[in-house]
Amino acid sequence: MKINGIDYRTIWVDPTDPAVIRIIDQRRLPHALVEEELRQVEDFARAIAEMHVRGAGLIGATAAFGIYSATLAAPATDPRPFLRQAATALKATRPTAGNLAWAVERMLAILDCCWLDDYTPLQGQAGGGDEQKPNPRTAEPGRRLQVLQQTALAAARAIADEDADCCRRIGEHGLELIRELSRRRPGRPVNILTHCNAGWLAFVDYGSATAPIYAAHREGIPLHVWVDETRPWLQGARLTAWELAGEGVPHTLIADNAGGHLMQHGQVDLVLVGTDRTTRCGDVANKIGTYLKALAAHDNGVPFYVALPSSTFDWTICDGKAEIPIEERGGDELRCISGLAVSEQGAGPGTGGHGEQRVLICPPATPAANPSFDVTPARLISGLISERGIMRAEEADILRLYPEKRGN
Amino acid sequence: MKINGIDYRTIWVDPTDPAVIRIIDQRRLPHALVEEELRQVEDFARAIAEMHVRGAGLIGATAAFGIYSATLAAPATDPRPFLRQAATALKATRPTAGNLAWAVERMLAILDCCWLDDYTPLQGQAGGGDEQKPNPRTAEPGRRLQVLQQTALAAARAIADEDADCCRRIGEHGLELIRELSRRRPGRPVNILTHCNAGWLAFVDYGSATAPIYAAHREGIPLHVWVDETRPWLQGARLTAWELAGEGVPHTLIADNAGGHLMQHGQVDLVLVGTDRTTRCGDVANKIGTYLKALAAHDNGVPFYVALPSSTFDWTICDGKAEIPIEERGGDELRCISGLAVSEQGAGPGTGGHGEQRVLICPPATPAANPSFDVTPARLISGLISERGIMRAEEADILRLYPEKRGN
Repeated sequence: MKINGIDYRTIWVDPTDPAVIRIIDQRRLPHALVEEELRQVEDFARAIAEMHVRGAGLIGATAAFGIYSATLAAPATDPRPFLRQAATALKATRPTAGNLAWAVERMLAILDCCWLDDYTPLQGQAGGGDEQKPNPRTAEPGRRLQVLQQTALAAARAIADEDADCCRRIGEHGLELIRELSRRRPGRPVNILTHCNAGWLAFVDYGSATAPIYAAHREGIPLHVWVDETRPWLQGARLTAWELAGEGVPHTLIADNAGGHLMQHGQVDLVLVGTDRTTRCGDVANKIGTYLKALAAHDNGVPFYVALPSSTFDWTICDGKAEIPIEERGGDELRCISGLAVSEQGAGPGTGGHGEQRVLICPPATPAANPSFDVTPARLISGLISERGIMRAEEADILRLYPEKRGN
Repeated sequence: MKINGIDYRTIWVDPTDPAVIRIIDQRRLPHALVEEELRQVEDFARAIAEMHVRGAGLIGATAAFGIYSATLAAPATDPRPFLRQAATALKATRPTAGNLAWAVERMLAILDCCWLDDYTPLQGQAGGGDEQKPNPRTAEPGRRLQVLQQTALAAARAIADEDADCCRRIGEHGLELIRELSRRRPGRPVNILTHCNAGWLAFVDYGSATAPIYAAHREGIPLHVWVDETRPWLQGARLTAWELAGEGVPHTLIADNAGGHLMQHGQVDLVLVGTDRTTRCGDVANKIGTYLKALAAHDNGVPFYVALPSSTFDWTICDGKAEIPIEERGGDELRCISGLAVSEQGAGPGTGGHGEQRVLICPPATPAANPSFDVTPARLISGLISERGIMRAEEADILRLYPEKRGN
């Protein structure tokens, strides 16, 4: 997606040096666009643990490139112990992130397979297709490691590409919805409200909830996005508003409190959000406050859709409220807010901030509670949009698109 | 109410010099408790216009004391033109605040009456009751002005006392509700969620939504308050949390997004909020986001009550959503947040902030919309609590307590 008119992904291989992986340090957004070079496994681990990168899809891709980076430092005799050590370090950074473990394990399986003593490259294997590649079993160790490195790079790229492709397809399915809403309201923009950042910054590209928005915008459908600022972390204000500006999508920042009022007055045509975990019955755990928007949408007859890569489905549970544990984070996230220091005169461009500052918004001893997610029950959800299509938020219709999960 | 163990009102006459009125500069809360002396009409006008004081009840009382202050500077020959000029200046500070005009007009009427050429003091007249008071018609000008000044002081005190008394009675009625909830849940605190600041800082004392909380706490009923931070102005974080701490009421600050989740999980027994305008049919306009909490309360069977002095009733309208205009404030209130500058290490006591700072939380060019109020329809409200008692949010039951409005 675009930043200052230039196409970016959230993670990419340096075009001049394939040993360097580049990311955007998301902690610095929106006040500074800082690219960061990752070279060693430790760099990747720190980037994930300290949230230079965030979001399920992006964390997985970053870990995959981290394993690739480990192959560049591994000994030629047998790189596998070194790689397993790197894998352990990467997985330990954010132990609850499902995509992280999945991506690391997939990388290890490919590389283990590549290094097997009786290994013979298969046509079409990840990283394969090049007939000139030597048989790793017979090649000298240096050349053999080189093949492993190429395989690792190709496999990490594949994980990133799959993530982006998955989001692109969510965009195509969701586009239908927006197209239909636009048809019903010719001559006026479709007003879409979103909460938190389920944007391209949380994935490798496109995003989940934002993918249909970008697709519709590129098709020329007039639309406008209400961006919930999303306290306490302000992902909407810091990331979603910045993303949408980069793509030239008209948008307006609002307090999380404002959405109900806007819906009461017909100013929202569609609510579109992401999800962190989705039950087989269609309950959705997403950023705290999502449930309140679903209630308001329901009360005002506004369609409420949830966009999700299939990987967010938890096929083992049905009742989200009872079965999804809700992470409770520290109170300082609520008591303190970081931003660009500005003068009292205003915040427009040119008022000249002089760096990031953290401010306390309440008496210092105030106790604060900070649940990070809430569960929106399926009854309030108009539909789910995954890379396989649009389904109603109920088990039977979900299983229609996921017939392989029927037996579970 | 208490600050650091000492009883305060939001406005009071200096005990050593009755020409000085003292207020708390609310812009500096919660990070600094700054008392301010108001001496001249200009001081009062500035305090209201620049929001050193805020809240319907307090604005009215401040304006009343402003007229008293004008009598101290008025010429003895005929102070009335001077007083009318002062009244005009005071009323212009916040033209939409209903209580402001009401309080100024009430002061002028009393003083005009006092100064009439054929005026004879009546037994029991505001400021009267002192048999020794000279007849202003016959007294020499200096003594006559002195009587006017005494009358003005007594009248302003009466306005402040009435405001406080009105809130105290709301507290008594609301206490019944909390007492009953506590009876049903012996051995555990009553969990009350409130939004914005309908506390004593918005009135002369007690507050509206907080009055029942303070009354219950003083009676020893165990309770705990969830304080919505209330973006964008953060009245909950800045004022309500500070107020409750001063009175020793257990409380926890939460993001506005969190209330629905807490209600889903049985952690809220009662929602108690204020109102800026209430229709004769029971619709309520209150701080933006109130409607979302009402929806969540309704969805989870949590009682939702609104506390109000009768002065917030607008007897001329029924349908709040259609008929109450919603104030749209500037976008910088949303884009920028002020607080006490603190280091990245934490916000506990002793981390040592070094002054207030304003920070920008989004890209500087981000458009922002900032509706200040929303309308909660009567169907979502369990009841209204005014100084006359508790009523259902429906016209017939409201008119039961306000029979004099039946003809309107």
